[in-house]
Amino acid sequence: MAELSRATDVPIPTIKYYLREGLLPAGEAVAANQAEYAEDHARRLLLIRVLTDVGGLRLLSVRRVLDALDDERLSVHELLGSAHRALAPAFDTEEPPADLLEARREVDRFLAQLDWQVGSDAPARWMLSEALVTLRRLGRKVDATVFERYARVAERLAAHEVKQVYGRSRVDAVEGLVIGSVVFERALVALRYLAQEHHSARRG
Amino acid sequence: MAELSRATDVPIPTIKYYLREGLLPAGEAVAANQAEYAEDHARRLLLIRVLTDVGGLRLLSVRRVLDALDDERLSVHELLGSAHRALAPAFDTEEPPADLLEARREVDRFLAQLDWQVGSDAPARWMLSEALVTLRRLGRKVDATVFERYARVAERLAAHEVKQVYGRSRVDAVEGLVIGSVVFERALVALRYLAQEHHSARRG
Repeated sequence: MAELSRATDVPIPTIKYYLREGLLPAGEAVAANQAEYAEDHARRLLLIRVLTDVGGLRLLSVRRVLDALDDERLSVHELLGSAHRALAPAFDTEEPPADLLEARREVDRFLAQLDWQVGSDAPARWMLSEALVTLRRLGRKVDATVFERYARVAERLAAHEVKQVYGRSRVDAVEGLVIGSVVFERALVALRYLAQEHHSARRG
Repeated sequence: MAELSRATDVPIPTIKYYLREGLLPAGEAVAANQAEYAEDHARRLLLIRVLTDVGGLRLLSVRRVLDALDDERLSVHELLGSAHRALAPAFDTEEPPADLLEARREVDRFLAQLDWQVGSDAPARWMLSEALVTLRRLGRKVDATVFERYARVAERLAAHEVKQVYGRSRVDAVEGLVIGSVVFERALVALRYLAQEHHSARRG
């Protein structure tokens, strides 16, 4: 375990905690007080850290991603769906406010116009609807087409990202997409701030 | 105050809390138990909500954005810098690990090659460096050029976003950029998930 901790830079108490919580499978016992941890353990450990530290996921959501990853019956596409459902914020859609419901209907129409094949239960539909509602509550007179420019950009990035990971093994593909989602999302946010500063500097 | 609460959909105890914390200026007293709140109050209240609810900012960071907004000496460009510094996660750069420092040097070179005019103290430089370090810790052999595609996209979005707000009044411009940063960032994340699902569906 000390070796696993050294290799991954994750403190031993954290590793023990993940083991207790069942996020990390137990190592193979080689002596009374020793267990052997394979390379898979290091890899899984790093994935857990990315999901918690960079993705800001709670352990419950991490577990959902890992469970999906371990479920051999799921295709890469289904796995990606599970990962997104864990990554997207949870929405209480029991009784959505009227303006959110209206925004959701518009977002659904907007995605249909883009001809995107997306499950009707994808939580990102609600995320986008909330963004629209927020703009309206702030007094902006906008409809879902305000996102058109962003949709085109997202489409181009996603095409590249999905192409990168297909062809790899099932676990590699989803790890690639999950890590990509989380890490490149942060990078994109940072780059957008930097680019805004740059353009604002040019305008003075 | 009841009226302000109705107009903005923010509960009265929350308004009272913001008043106590000095985030919202006091209304003009019109009677012993009554104060008048102008339209500016409603607007500021909504801005606070966007920063906390959508941007996930803590009150300390909200205060920094509002203080900058109220500081008439700051230009729009300086104001934007202050807003970004509040929006970006705080980094403890006292003693950065060696791999983060190395990544930071590469990110600085990368931005110089892009010819972006960005302050050397912009926290997004560290955000991007952290993303690079994370990819490397996960075993990916990448350098800062892995972000090139994202930089191009960010550049195009930022050019449009900055153009939208310049020409407006000082407060309008920065409110526009802050709200845009926060709300369109969420929209972009949602759209990227949706587009990934769409492309993954096509590949099956």
